[in-house]
Amino acid sequence: MLSIASNNFNIFATMISVVIIGGGNVSHHLTQAFLDCNKVELKQLYARNINSIIEFQSRVSITDNITLLTDADVYIIAVSDDAIAEVSSQLPHHKLIVHTSGSVPMDTIANRGKKGIFYPLQSFSKNKTVDFSSIPLCIEAENETDFKLLEKLASFISEKVYAISSDQRSKLHVAAVFVNNFTNHMYKIGNDICESYNVPFEVLLPLIKETALKVEEVKPDFAQTGPAKRKDEKTIERHLELLNSNQKEIYQLITKSIQNG
Amino acid sequence: MLSIASNNFNIFATMISVVIIGGGNVSHHLTQAFLDCNKVELKQLYARNINSIIEFQSRVSITDNITLLTDADVYIIAVSDDAIAEVSSQLPHHKLIVHTSGSVPMDTIANRGKKGIFYPLQSFSKNKTVDFSSIPLCIEAENETDFKLLEKLASFISEKVYAISSDQRSKLHVAAVFVNNFTNHMYKIGNDICESYNVPFEVLLPLIKETALKVEEVKPDFAQTGPAKRKDEKTIERHLELLNSNQKEIYQLITKSIQNG
Repeated sequence: MLSIASNNFNIFATMISVVIIGGGNVSHHLTQAFLDCNKVELKQLYARNINSIIEFQSRVSITDNITLLTDADVYIIAVSDDAIAEVSSQLPHHKLIVHTSGSVPMDTIANRGKKGIFYPLQSFSKNKTVDFSSIPLCIEAENETDFKLLEKLASFISEKVYAISSDQRSKLHVAAVFVNNFTNHMYKIGNDICESYNVPFEVLLPLIKETALKVEEVKPDFAQTGPAKRKDEKTIERHLELLNSNQKEIYQLITKSIQNG
Repeated sequence: MLSIASNNFNIFATMISVVIIGGGNVSHHLTQAFLDCNKVELKQLYARNINSIIEFQSRVSITDNITLLTDADVYIIAVSDDAIAEVSSQLPHHKLIVHTSGSVPMDTIANRGKKGIFYPLQSFSKNKTVDFSSIPLCIEAENETDFKLLEKLASFISEKVYAISSDQRSKLHVAAVFVNNFTNHMYKIGNDICESYNVPFEVLLPLIKETALKVEEVKPDFAQTGPAKRKDEKTIERHLELLNSNQKEIYQLITKSIQNG
């Protein structure tokens, strides 16, 4: 244990310095989190469009010229998935370069031996403040030194740091599509039904919240209720009559899936 | 306005007295809410199986003999949907009788001219304490006097009282299936994917919570993100390869539905 402690000391004797690449939601909230934690030297922000990061100019150096990046321990790429490869090829190859995407393989980064992942598993909106400390940060690196550095960096802004391999991350990402994107589509259909029958959608909000909070305590399997689960064909028939053809198709498929367990 | 105030005075000069029929989750939480609010005279609880209500015996009269019910202003039937008709036929026909179901028509109640609905739109678990004040109560009655009585009764335990017709309620119920039962099934698939690849499901919990809370501020339509929404076929293809045939069928159908708006 002593040797680990001494390693840590060598690595973290000085503040970890960071450059963030990107002007979107993830970049915005990461920047905010690093600035707030006071334990990270955020050296520079880069964005193709300077206006997307202009709000931070009084607190950190900003640039729209990728050839003028300053030196840092970690370069965090928070750009759209398709741009990661190209952006990474313009960064200093001997430095630790990580991206923040849930679905792009680590190998997409164009340097050798110092790649990594720094993936915050949350859905961000620019205008909505987030408490970064509760957001899971999934990290990965090609070697242990870099992993420890990322682990340390992540622990400064989040209480939930997970070692997740690229393979696991790709599965996590598809799981996230179900619990986030597809769940939101269930809300959308609920909203459509309410609107078409003049019922305020807000009536459903407490139920939506309770459903989400329930799985923090009970596995989704055990939390399942409703006509599908109890094979209440009479209610299912009544429901199908109220739906349009698209809604009906989804209702039938998910009902079947619930019943097949 | 004066005449309404004076009507109110006549109706509510004394406490509203209530008998609750049923020993399940809804009955349990309703009983708790009425006992806590101190503004309702909860006269009696009935359940076929006395053990299901025995916990309340020190605070309210309980019985398992439906022929021995005491007199009350309102009889609230909180039994399974299929039992509502039969139970209601055994209650005093000249009294206001309401049920708590989301999907059963008001007409199922077997009295004349004094039927009503008292539907708390929430998913209850017996062991989980709920804050009833935030639960929407959807009420309906056959005449205005009874409606006002139910409105008053509902307002004692909930801050969210809605006048919802039987027709609207049936639509609300199918919408609730989407945002509760089907959403929970999305969580279940997310959990299955995590388990099959050894990723802890808890990593997804903050995302689940954020997704639910987001629609309190943004309409689901505008909250939609993800590969389906942005027509990211590359990611969709990668995702489909990771899913079993049932998950794949659901992924494809919901993706199509999101894309068709």
